[in-house]
Amino acid sequence: MFQWQQYELGVCYYPEQWEESLWREDLRRMKDAGIGTVRVAEFCWVLFEPAEGEFHFDLFDRFLSLCQEEGMKVILGTPTATPPAWLTEAYPEVLNALPDKTLLRHGARRHYNYNSPVYQRFCSRIVEEMAKHFASHPAVIGWQIDNELNCETDEFHSEADDLAFREFLKKHYTTLEDLNRAWGTVVWSGVYTSWDQIFTPRPVLNAGHNPHYLLDYYRFISDSCISFAVMQAEILRKYLKKGDFITTNGLFGNVDNHALTEKALDVYTYDSYPDFALGLDRSPKTSTDLNDRKWSRNLIETRSVCPHFGIMEQQSGAGGWANRMEMPAPRPGQLTLWAMQSVAHGADFISFFRWRTAPYGTEIYWHGILDYDNRDNRKLREVKAFGNLLQKLTPVCGAEHVAAFALLKDYDNEWDAQADVWHKRISSGSEKEIFAASQLHHTPYDIVYLNDDTALSALSRYPVVFYPHPMIMTESRASLLTEYVKNGGTLVVGCRAGLKDANGKAVMMPQPGLLQPLTGTDVQDFTFVSPAEENDPAYPIFHDILTPMEGTAVLARYQTSYYAGEACLTEKKTGKGKTIHLGSAFSRDTVAKLFEHLVILEPFRNVVDAPKDVELLLREKGGKQYLFALNYLAQNQTLHLQKSVYSVFEEKELCGDVTLPPYGIAVYAL
Amino acid sequence: MFQWQQYELGVCYYPEQWEESLWREDLRRMKDAGIGTVRVAEFCWVLFEPAEGEFHFDLFDRFLSLCQEEGMKVILGTPTATPPAWLTEAYPEVLNALPDKTLLRHGARRHYNYNSPVYQRFCSRIVEEMAKHFASHPAVIGWQIDNELNCETDEFHSEADDLAFREFLKKHYTTLEDLNRAWGTVVWSGVYTSWDQIFTPRPVLNAGHNPHYLLDYYRFISDSCISFAVMQAEILRKYLKKGDFITTNGLFGNVDNHALTEKALDVYTYDSYPDFALGLDRSPKTSTDLNDRKWSRNLIETRSVCPHFGIMEQQSGAGGWANRMEMPAPRPGQLTLWAMQSVAHGADFISFFRWRTAPYGTEIYWHGILDYDNRDNRKLREVKAFGNLLQKLTPVCGAEHVAAFALLKDYDNEWDAQADVWHKRISSGSEKEIFAASQLHHTPYDIVYLNDDTALSALSRYPVVFYPHPMIMTESRASLLTEYVKNGGTLVVGCRAGLKDANGKAVMMPQPGLLQPLTGTDVQDFTFVSPAEENDPAYPIFHDILTPMEGTAVLARYQTSYYAGEACLTEKKTGKGKTIHLGSAFSRDTVAKLFEHLVILEPFRNVVDAPKDVELLLREKGGKQYLFALNYLAQNQTLHLQKSVYSVFEEKELCGDVTLPPYGIAVYAL
Amino acid sequence: MFQWQQYELGVCYYPEQWEESLWREDLRRMKDAGIGTVRVAEFCWVLFEPAEGEFHFDLFDRFLSLCQEEGMKVILGTPTATPPAWLTEAYPEVLNALPDKTLLRHGARRHYNYNSPVYQRFCSRIVEEMAKHFASHPAVIGWQIDNELNCETDEFHSEADDLAFREFLKKHYTTLEDLNRAWGTVVWSGVYTSWDQIFTPRPVLNAGHNPHYLLDYYRFISDSCISFAVMQAEILRKYLKKGDFITTNGLFGNVDNHALTEKALDVYTYDSYPDFALGLDRSPKTSTDLNDRKWSRNLIETRSVCPHFGIMEQQSGAGGWANRMEMPAPRPGQLTLWAMQSVAHGADFISFFRWRTAPYGTEIYWHGILDYDNRDNRKLREVKAFGNLLQKLTPVCGAEHVAAFALLKDYDNEWDAQADVWHKRISSGSEKEIFAASQLHHTPYDIVYLNDDTALSALSRYPVVFYPHPMIMTESRASLLTEYVKNGGTLVVGCRAGLKDANGKAVMMPQPGLLQPLTGTDVQDFTFVSPAEENDPAYPIFHDILTPMEGTAVLARYQTSYYAGEACLTEKKTGKGKTIHLGSAFSRDTVAKLFEHLVILEPFRNVVDAPKDVELLLREKGGKQYLFALNYLAQNQTLHLQKSVYSVFEEKELCGDVTLPPYGIAVYAL
Repeated sequence: MFQWQQYELGVCYYPEQWEESLWREDLRRMKDAGIGTVRVAEFCWVLFEPAEGEFHFDLFDRFLSLCQEEGMKVILGTPTATPPAWLTEAYPEVLNALPDKTLLRHGARRHYNYNSPVYQRFCSRIVEEMAKHFASHPAVIGWQIDNELNCETDEFHSEADDLAFREFLKKHYTTLEDLNRAWGTVVWSGVYTSWDQIFTPRPVLNAGHNPHYLLDYYRFISDSCISFAVMQAEILRKYLKKGDFITTNGLFGNVDNHALTEKALDVYTYDSYPDFALGLDRSPKTSTDLNDRKWSRNLIETRSVCPHFGIMEQQSGAGGWANRMEMPAPRPGQLTLWAMQSVAHGADFISFFRWRTAPYGTEIYWHGILDYDNRDNRKLREVKAFGNLLQKLTPVCGAEHVAAFALLKDYDNEWDAQADVWHKRISSGSEKEIFAASQLHHTPYDIVYLNDDTALSALSRYPVVFYPHPMIMTESRASLLTEYVKNGGTLVVGCRAGLKDANGKAVMMPQPGLLQPLTGTDVQDFTFVSPAEENDPAYPIFHDILTPMEGTAVLARYQTSYYAGEACLTEKKTGKGKTIHLGSAFSRDTVAKLFEHLVILEPFRNVVDAPKDVELLLREKGGKQYLFALNYLAQNQTLHLQKSVYSVFEEKELCGDVTLPPYGIAVYAL
Repeated sequence: MFQWQQYELGVCYYPEQWEESLWREDLRRMKDAGIGTVRVAEFCWVLFEPAEGEFHFDLFDRFLSLCQEEGMKVILGTPTATPPAWLTEAYPEVLNALPDKTLLRHGARRHYNYNSPVYQRFCSRIVEEMAKHFASHPAVIGWQIDNELNCETDEFHSEADDLAFREFLKKHYTTLEDLNRAWGTVVWSGVYTSWDQIFTPRPVLNAGHNPHYLLDYYRFISDSCISFAVMQAEILRKYLKKGDFITTNGLFGNVDNHALTEKALDVYTYDSYPDFALGLDRSPKTSTDLNDRKWSRNLIETRSVCPHFGIMEQQSGAGGWANRMEMPAPRPGQLTLWAMQSVAHGADFISFFRWRTAPYGTEIYWHGILDYDNRDNRKLREVKAFGNLLQKLTPVCGAEHVAAFALLKDYDNEWDAQADVWHKRISSGSEKEIFAASQLHHTPYDIVYLNDDTALSALSRYPVVFYPHPMIMTESRASLLTEYVKNGGTLVVGCRAGLKDANGKAVMMPQPGLLQPLTGTDVQDFTFVSPAEENDPAYPIFHDILTPMEGTAVLARYQTSYYAGEACLTEKKTGKGKTIHLGSAFSRDTVAKLFEHLVILEPFRNVVDAPKDVELLLREKGGKQYLFALNYLAQNQTLHLQKSVYSVFEEKELCGDVTLPPYGIAVYAL
Repeated sequence: MFQWQQYELGVCYYPEQWEESLWREDLRRMKDAGIGTVRVAEFCWVLFEPAEGEFHFDLFDRFLSLCQEEGMKVILGTPTATPPAWLTEAYPEVLNALPDKTLLRHGARRHYNYNSPVYQRFCSRIVEEMAKHFASHPAVIGWQIDNELNCETDEFHSEADDLAFREFLKKHYTTLEDLNRAWGTVVWSGVYTSWDQIFTPRPVLNAGHNPHYLLDYYRFISDSCISFAVMQAEILRKYLKKGDFITTNGLFGNVDNHALTEKALDVYTYDSYPDFALGLDRSPKTSTDLNDRKWSRNLIETRSVCPHFGIMEQQSGAGGWANRMEMPAPRPGQLTLWAMQSVAHGADFISFFRWRTAPYGTEIYWHGILDYDNRDNRKLREVKAFGNLLQKLTPVCGAEHVAAFALLKDYDNEWDAQADVWHKRISSGSEKEIFAASQLHHTPYDIVYLNDDTALSALSRYPVVFYPHPMIMTESRASLLTEYVKNGGTLVVGCRAGLKDANGKAVMMPQPGLLQPLTGTDVQDFTFVSPAEENDPAYPIFHDILTPMEGTAVLARYQTSYYAGEACLTEKKTGKGKTIHLGSAFSRDTVAKLFEHLVILEPFRNVVDAPKDVELLLREKGGKQYLFALNYLAQNQTLHLQKSVYSVFEEKELCGDVTLPPYGIAVYAL
């Protein structure tokens, strides 16, 4: 893996969109603002290959020379997210399609499919030509594969996808008999008697697809996406200069980002746009989801993929397309707040999107640092000041995050919840509430994705793990969890855990299935919370009614409906550890009570007493700890420092009440 | 017609979905719970015919032998609702299509069309093979044709449907000239000059299809569906054992269930799922439509088709598909309540859906009696207890329903309201309100569907008939109504009655058209209730402003808008009877006042004083009367018995205040 | 241009829909009601040409003879809005299509495309045959081309449109290089390397089309529509009787009605249906958009196209289709009010839609003067009374409208706002509010559409012009505005003015771009009003933060957000005039304050003090002024006449308090 050795600022730049006469001045103004890297070229296919097999790199040759002269480093994007019109018109089989096979056409972006051999051939060639031509250039420091893989859409329905899906399934199941059994196609006469009868999801009545088939379809999409990235990475590695890295800018649906990173990348980057939460289609005044602060959830995800990641696109201005997305401009301080939110969560490279707002195209309102008028402005001043703050944070670069607990996830359950609305309602509700409790009670967490190879050590770093609703539970994961608990860990699971096997089929066992030995509970009855009844908001959405087995303690009981008095929260010891079983989905109040019960609540409370609207994060490096405090509100927030700490930005010791201004941030060395 | 001679319990079972080793135990547990019949095989086509022309029945041979051994009776479903993948891939012309001819594909169910000669050939063969093979088996007692005809969708747009639609029209109109006149195609240059220009509804701007064409299209769909069922019934009858019956499980859109039953069936069955009303997409706390109790409306419809019907699928657990429909589990008592709701309305056979929840497939959350874990549970205990209650009800089996009035309907108006949003808004509002008034005021009704052959005796059983909005009125129906009134009946009609002819075209007559001699009113002005004005909720939606003609009495006058003071409710005597004309749509308050005025309000009030939330139904057999009382709420309800009655379940005489527990039911022999 | 010399009443009539025996009686009843003109034949193609190349005009020959006998004048519609089924089935290339090329089929109307050479050939022939046959008939006085061009849909996607779009673009850009530059296709690798790669909008992900491409697409649609009309007009002119006129009934999207009128028509007509505002899908009780009164906005638009226009379809009854649009009947007086609203705004010809409600077809609920029963009714009585009122208004016919200011518009910005949701949100909000302020404060305005040929005299008639958000600003328009201001005019512009060039691309200039010399303001920061913050409703939607330059006065400052204290309203003198710059979108309160500031508020206040719910309009002719007062409410309204005026309808002098009854109207000669 690649890791930045010090904080770096970057910016996304589109030399092809501007008069060449502007380039040098742009680079100099960037440098003046502390920006040392530009990400370029990710949408330039038609410039590089204006006709099939004709390659022209002179425009970027000139640009790279200038970068070299000006000391600017360059990340090059491969341009495969936007095939030229000549390609898609001549070879429409490269296009993605809707379920009814209507092709998605030239005119926007990401309209291709991963599995067309023709597209793969064209992509291999353009990547190889670019790599051959540019990889040895001294200004180049890294490569971005494609752009935002699986953004715009994460479903694919072309004929190439049908064929590839069959191959994917043959590899996994070998025989149709096994596939039919795995999917339970005996239902509704669904049995396949030839591989050719299988397609990516086509139009069916009431979208009533078999969910186990869908689960494999999502796995297939992930596999296709990763293979596409690997194909490019393998070409790039043939030409890559020593020290240069390969990345992609991600976190989109239907892709196993962990496997993608492991198989294709040196480092992972994320595109962070918290202003979406404040757009004109949202109600930030009444929202209960923490608005822009909830981008921290994405950043926790990102650092689960890659602890020392980069931000390839950090929002610097209002986002917007001509046809959708209306956002207010970031308020003074928000650019800095959001960039520091990324840094606090582990980003070592912050590349702003974008240097100057495009005066044309679909993204005409996706504002950059500079506005159309190209004058210095408050955003440029913020970028420069932010760079200065980063200088002061130098010792923190590469520090590890200190978490009070881990949230366990896995792609099987992630995708099962896409195919299964019962699963989705429960899981998405709980994830939102666990995050909210963590934030409002200053109890930070890491995310750990489980797969069949996950080592015990990945869990045993944490005294407590929440695995809210692992409906799909495999033998190997149940073993891992058992080992974890036996060794002293605390496992927290919620309703519907253990319901399903790896294909998303319910197991014919007393619930919570494979987890029953750990939970010591038996679920004999269960129900969605009825909209016809009053319910305690502490236990929302779904109720597994828990019958405690021998040795299991009841921590709380339902107070409503026909099961009032039955257990809803239990605790069972196993070895040195224990398992908490919550019969319902999670609410922020119940999570906070569990934090308290498990003695992980507010680990920094001996250092600082902070109001709910401030996010606290702790980073650790070389034995030193750094506490980040971020104020997401437009109002002052008062923190009470319980002991003397060193304010890294103010460069002095502080104690007692301190004030964070609107959108203000502080870092305290403890 | 077939009629059950005593109450029977059944269950839907899918032997193909389970390890064969479970079968015997399952049958024994069913019997232990009082279940004597299983419905099977309705989705087994691919098992019976895994490749074109290859038939295998051994799995069900074994299952039927076991049933025979265990004394279990069997209803076999023909599997034509779910063609195998090999069939639809090889012969895509069998598929149904969207209006733009996009085919609806394999992967869910009911994706075929009724009119494809290829599909008819395949269906005939599988039905014939099944019938030949199984019909003489001693365990078999009946056949279900297909499954839920017209469920999932009730519109068809395949090319086979286009061709069949033209033939249907040729038969009805003979000449294009007649068709053009009937549809008024002179509007918008719509005239057809060749039969080949006519299609099932295709994409047109703003969905602006000619409504008279749509009306015939709906008639065509019904005709296609019935023909498809008749085709199967004719084959089955060649092989049917004496005493065995043919049924189908119905009540879906765009099919004349009465003609279907008359032409193809021995008995009609219904699938009753009241938990839909309590799903997470509903607001049962604030709903005004009586929630699960409104399933009684469907049951009244069902007994209009077939007075002694069966329930092929009676909800036993929470319903749900993987991709939609999230429902809470039925509360303890609700399974019994809903099953007894069916019995109270005339069901003699109650088959629960389903024995055990499927652990896989789209219906993974459509819960049966048993859960995934296969253990005895409260639902199984309820089924068993319900069977015991039915034993006590033995004398009631086959009893007739006693209604205070009849609600008249007909398919012409039903389907016209689908093609006509003005009609639909008025009709659907009134039907809901008449039902609510009937329920809340314990004034039960029958539904009578009129057609051109309806005999006077079908009406003259009732002192009062409500025919809320017969916009389409024919000479023969007007005559029938006149005879009914002359003979002493009371006819109640609402706004817009008599507006149209049999093609849904407005008649150029003073309104209410053919009914004017009966109503003695003249409608010279009319309007939707204006959203800009205040209105009296007693007279909702639409206002025909009534000018009473000579001899017509005014019962009420509008109090609002420019027609304040004009008549809105009139009464006119004809012969021994009379006609009430309501100028507006019906509200529950106005209906209740009409009940009182017509002296049909609460016919049981001398027996029992019941709260609004309890449904009361009276059944009569051999001179004895049985009063059912059903409590739909989670709270106790107190009834006051005005005189001593015999409680069938408690087996004792009762008088005065008695309490129905939550979801409780009682049957009193009067 | 054609102009009516006196007020005329007309009616839309469909002789083909009625028994021929009704015709004469219908004509005589029309005449009795004061109706002298019928508009006919616009949907009669299949009657005129029942098979390809066979023409039959005898039905209308008989009808025209009868009109001649009865002294009724006739406007004939060309029937090209509804091609016969034989045509569209034989030549499907004449059909319009959805973006995915699904054809829009026979069965409704307007399902053709303008660009199919086949369709153009068929249309030319039917128009020529009709013109040859009917144009010399003495009863004929005018022709309507097609019916409601661009109604039903204003987007076209057939293959003929693709081809025509390419030709349109070739004509405008000559080279692909110029086109690519104009559209900024360098973004997202969008560059076209062959004309054949360009299509009308096809399915793309997230509808992310290039907005400059869309802008040209809308221009293309307008061009296609106009060419289609010109093609018909040129044929008609070959046969037109002297004095007869050519019109079309318009005001639909994506067409430059001014160019259409100039190139193809003698006079423009509009179809006015204010009851849409009171339909069952609306909330007139709580609406803030003035309900039916806002049809005056459309009428102001109409008179900008053609100051002395006609109403080809004036609503006389409730509108409705079988499948959508449910409206209450117009209240007594509303028919007259709405017709007089048209007259007050400049209509000299009022043709009611329609004589008698169609008893069949999609428009079965589009009520005419007479109802299905064909009896005299209150609507017929109102029409007759309205005709009598018009007699009294004879001196007013042809009078000019007196406006306090002009609202400037142009099609570039109109269509840019369709391709650009930021533009649309701002513009549509402001236009609504300016209209509301004008109405509620009795400060009437004219609309002036700017194009590159607009003469200064078109503006200099007005002391004040509002040009709310000319995002697209060209050199020629900036010059025109400068001349206007220098000569003493006052220009008012709002936020985002001057942002873009003629292709909708942002200009790289300090904002407001080309208007900065006039506004004397500099926009260095800007934002949508944040939904996370409180905001002053006086300054809604968007905020350009204004930095006043030397000599610019600040009239108001923002009170909220981070830019509290910055200028939001400024004034700068140039020559004899001045420019007001509002940083936000317009609110009705701010507009009213600007009226006051600019001394144009309530120009009639010395004549009459009227309540907000009364619309006032002033017309002037031959030195005499006529004040129209229209009451849109169901309640009496009291006006206070400040001096003695002559009531044209009451035929007497009035002074002091006078009462307008519900929906009442008055005209005062001053």
